Amino acid sequence: MGRRAKGIGSQPGENVRRIGLVVAYDGTNYCGWQLQNNGVSIQGILNETLSKILGEEIFVMGASRTDAGVHALGNVAVFDTTARIPGDKVAYALNQWLPEDIRIQLSEEVERDFHPRYCDSEKTYEYRILNTRFPVPTERLYSYFYHYDLDVEKMREATSYLIGRHDFASFCGSGAQVKTTIRTITSLNVDRDGDIITIRVTGTGFLYNMVRIIAGTLIEIGNSQYPPETMETILKACSREAAGPTAPAHGLTLVSINFF
Amino acid sequence: MGRRAKGIGSQPGENVRRIGLVVAYDGTNYCGWQLQNNGVSIQGILNETLSKILGEEIFVMGASRTDAGVHALGNVAVFDTTARIPGDKVAYALNQWLPEDIRIQLSEEVERDFHPRYCDSEKTYEYRILNTRFPVPTERLYSYFYHYDLDVEKMREATSYLIGRHDFASFCGSGAQVKTTIRTITSLNVDRDGDIITIRVTGTGFLYNMVRIIAGTLIEIGNSQYPPETMETILKACSREAAGPTAPAHGLTLVSINFF
Repeated sequence: MGRRAKGIGSQPGENVRRIGLVVAYDGTNYCGWQLQNNGVSIQGILNETLSKILGEEIFVMGASRTDAGVHALGNVAVFDTTARIPGDKVAYALNQWLPEDIRIQLSEEVERDFHPRYCDSEKTYEYRILNTRFPVPTERLYSYFYHYDLDVEKMREATSYLIGRHDFASFCGSGAQVKTTIRTITSLNVDRDGDIITIRVTGTGFLYNMVRIIAGTLIEIGNSQYPPETMETILKACSREAAGPTAPAHGLTLVSINFF
Repeated sequence: MGRRAKGIGSQPGENVRRIGLVVAYDGTNYCGWQLQNNGVSIQGILNETLSKILGEEIFVMGASRTDAGVHALGNVAVFDTTARIPGDKVAYALNQWLPEDIRIQLSEEVERDFHPRYCDSEKTYEYRILNTRFPVPTERLYSYFYHYDLDVEKMREATSYLIGRHDFASFCGSGAQVKTTIRTITSLNVDRDGDIITIRVTGTGFLYNMVRIIAGTLIEIGNSQYPPETMETILKACSREAAGPTAPAHGLTLVSINFF
């Protein structure tokens, strides 16, 4: 995770510790990461389960507020506690009580000022497309079924315009309130393995729905609705209307977050 | 599929046709392929849906009666009908009405005497193992989580004793009524891709639970509970007690069936 604490209770008068979690989940049955009044969220389940285990009210703060239906292999969250449980044991305790579609992959004590949402990081997402004639049941929860032929070469060509530091306003979902729509994509690959096409993108920050709008646009290019070079025009337009549709949530997985 | 019919209604006085289906399903929510009084089966769902679409009572006959929880990418089934729907259109009609965890991959008219259970064929199964520290939610339905380190090299070495024509009595689940326990495995591979180990086995026939018992035995060998050579002793013992446990159903997928 990074930013590991120097030792349990090493500072005088300090009995509150911050624990970091790497959280994996199947987003199918959740209204998303974020606590909501009218739905079951990953954050809500973690709060409840940790509060029960540790015997005090716990509030987890996540790195990425994934949408309803989006999956994660490695979202990162922290919480503060006065309980004396060793950081690395939290994962075992939580995994005993969590529903089977949420599993902690790692837990450790982190520095008190480490906040996964505000510390510099690099996130990797994967968007999976099942590109074949008929849907495959065992793939239905973790990939977007797209019937028409996709040309991976064209999709690859289009990605070249997005790599680097750009204004990604065209790829920002409406309703997002951000100071700037400038972001940096450090890598963006499209690969086919049989009927599964995987778009893998890494960057230092993502706008609301950015990966799903990139995926939706790449699908239109792969389907030859417009040529790969159009991606440059779309990017320069700095308008959501210029880009393709937002691809469905269930194809998206937050793979990992690395903190600097 | 094979054994394609020569043409619709080509024989005089003939108005019953046999349609072949390649069926994919997520076995999670089913009591298995076979029709049962106290559970929802794939066969039952197909019978009901086809009967509704075609307006006559339909009974599908499957190639492989997969167990509860076992998945399929390409099980094969046939049914007889007097309805005039073209064979290739059956897949589209069925996929409109089937639940999303069952999908037809191909449909076509086949010869009247083609029965997928009794015609010579070669089946391929995959058994997937998630071999890592903690379970991964998005893998939980389609792989068996095994915590302890598995040595793929040892598993591979052990497979060599099973390839070919042998008496597989040690790998036959109890309760099976078969004339002979001699079967032929034409290929058996073990591969690791990240945390996923895939056992892929092809053969001309399989005994009840055979792939799952092979998987359970390979797991014990991969975990160094006994050396790879023990596989030969286990095979020669011709006794179910000699082999390892039956690995859980949800790790198993029937990949394909090829008819000769």
